[in-house]
Amino acid sequence: MSLSASSPKLVAVEESRRFMIDCFKAVKVPEAHARAQADLLVAADYRGHFSHGMNRLEMYINDLAINSTNGGADPKVLKETPATAWVDGCNGLGAVVGNFCMDLAIKKAKTVGIGWVCSRGSNHYGMAGWYALRAMENGLVGMSMTNTSPLMAPTGAKEAALGTNPLSLGAPAGDCDHFLLDMATTAVAVGKIEIQNRKGAPLPDGWAQDPDGNVTNDAKLAFATGCLLPLGGTELTSGYKGYGLGAMVDILSGVMSGAKYSTQVRKWTHTGANTAADLGQLFVAIDPNCFAPDFEERMQDFNSRLRGAKPTDPNKPVLLAGDKESRNMKAVDEAGGIQYLENQLNTCAALAERLKIKPLSFK
Amino acid sequence: MSLSASSPKLVAVEESRRFMIDCFKAVKVPEAHARAQADLLVAADYRGHFSHGMNRLEMYINDLAINSTNGGADPKVLKETPATAWVDGCNGLGAVVGNFCMDLAIKKAKTVGIGWVCSRGSNHYGMAGWYALRAMENGLVGMSMTNTSPLMAPTGAKEAALGTNPLSLGAPAGDCDHFLLDMATTAVAVGKIEIQNRKGAPLPDGWAQDPDGNVTNDAKLAFATGCLLPLGGTELTSGYKGYGLGAMVDILSGVMSGAKYSTQVRKWTHTGANTAADLGQLFVAIDPNCFAPDFEERMQDFNSRLRGAKPTDPNKPVLLAGDKESRNMKAVDEAGGIQYLENQLNTCAALAERLKIKPLSFK
Repeated sequence: MSLSASSPKLVAVEESRRFMIDCFKAVKVPEAHARAQADLLVAADYRGHFSHGMNRLEMYINDLAINSTNGGADPKVLKETPATAWVDGCNGLGAVVGNFCMDLAIKKAKTVGIGWVCSRGSNHYGMAGWYALRAMENGLVGMSMTNTSPLMAPTGAKEAALGTNPLSLGAPAGDCDHFLLDMATTAVAVGKIEIQNRKGAPLPDGWAQDPDGNVTNDAKLAFATGCLLPLGGTELTSGYKGYGLGAMVDILSGVMSGAKYSTQVRKWTHTGANTAADLGQLFVAIDPNCFAPDFEERMQDFNSRLRGAKPTDPNKPVLLAGDKESRNMKAVDEAGGIQYLENQLNTCAALAERLKIKPLSFK
Repeated sequence: MSLSASSPKLVAVEESRRFMIDCFKAVKVPEAHARAQADLLVAADYRGHFSHGMNRLEMYINDLAINSTNGGADPKVLKETPATAWVDGCNGLGAVVGNFCMDLAIKKAKTVGIGWVCSRGSNHYGMAGWYALRAMENGLVGMSMTNTSPLMAPTGAKEAALGTNPLSLGAPAGDCDHFLLDMATTAVAVGKIEIQNRKGAPLPDGWAQDPDGNVTNDAKLAFATGCLLPLGGTELTSGYKGYGLGAMVDILSGVMSGAKYSTQVRKWTHTGANTAADLGQLFVAIDPNCFAPDFEERMQDFNSRLRGAKPTDPNKPVLLAGDKESRNMKAVDEAGGIQYLENQLNTCAALAERLKIKPLSFK
């Protein structure tokens, strides 16, 4: 899918990582933190979640440059039991806070079967699935969720009162297989509206509202209005369930952690905000060995049953959460790099100039 | 809303409970278990969830009468840590297994901040919110989920491979307020299709599929086909998220507990099955005091922010998960009883005759 008349410009995964680390270091982020944040972003691009990868870099850099995120901050534990912890992210980078919390949840899960860790004072933490993957690498089931800036209109409302509030659940399966759900509780993530907008393409029905609370197909108007529909769409198709799920995420991440929640969360901005985000996040790790033995074998069978369901279109086999991402990683490996959109590359070029770092190289 | 030409027949809440207890006792269920199951069912009707109340009685009675559910069985703990437990429901009644597990989760939450209990060998456990309510009565946040008979077609499939797999999340709030989400991960619960079918009314778009995998409006065909659409509907409106949520519920309840899962679960039947259901269920209780103080005060403010969002229609204020149910209970209290559908009352009359118990009395 080339977006220019010329041949596609590919960026090697390692070069994408190098570029982002350099950007973070240019705004005084310590090496280890820069690497943590870049690892997360490049993983999103590698998996095909462009909305949550390099697409977010400029926003992070802007927040760091004006000190509304503290790139050097380390999180600290405020209260804990053998199974739970309450953490203050101290306004650090999302990946730094998130990795700290998930690692703590993993440690607790290995001791008492479950770790339930929530954090206040965090920042945008990238794709929620990243933290589930961290638990899965330890043979555990992982969950994570975060609140975000108001962008979802509750069913029957014409203004936003919840974020896109994503949640993830990952489970390891036998034979190197897995299940990895990573979803916004809105019909789509705001990144998808941005991508349609960057492409100049319209929106399907059921994604977003106009200022009067009606469904709109205009990506630009939708982006300006900032009222996404919850998963399920309108009331008739049970959009109130998506609205309820978004509220559930905010309760477990924002309200419970003592972070900002609902309309308290600062407005969404790509250009950098002048207040701390104070987002709330939840990280859960569960040791399946505390329940029925042979979890991974059953997961493998479970996955086969879903993938094996009779397809409506015989040429389109049924996919499982995580399958698209696995295919995308394979495609990147085969091509030898990630193919970014042209205007993403323009943004990177401008960033390189602004931060006086080595520009992205292409293959 | 009278359904016959005559004045509505109301059934007092206590009379509904009495009738159901008598039905269960007639098929040899011990008093305490009969009461537990009846309490759950009448609570659903009281809250307006008719699909999960007396509407299910006949199915339970049929299962008990042919011994595919063991009405006298008590659950037992198979494995536990201070924060987790793996339980065998021993094919007991859903409410008996569920109350046992949630009470255990509550006990653990009061000790280490969280209790995560999953059970195999269970039966249909009624409305998922019942168990969250039990945790909320103890000042805790409660969650519950269950797998069910295959009724949801994965995105792109023309056969069912997951159940309606409901989940619930309840949180207490200050001033006797609360948040209570209780939702199937399909666009609608199968009970709603049944109710439309009983009414002879059509289905809206986006609820269910026909045998070729196309969306249908025919309630009878939809009920016969048994392929509900996941929350979100078709792929374009992110139905794969609802499909992913349904799979998440099955992983955490069915796969993890070692119960039946996915297409292993027996087919849905209203007339009684001749095999044990062996459903899997999850019960979680969380003590908010292990995190930021004053949780209930923040919940109250959170609720106000959502209810206070500017409504699209000025005459329809924005509702919160649980608000409809609170209104319904108030209406039942004011009317002095529950108004069942005529054919539900016919079913009860037939049951009374079959089981030789005192028929339902009306006010």
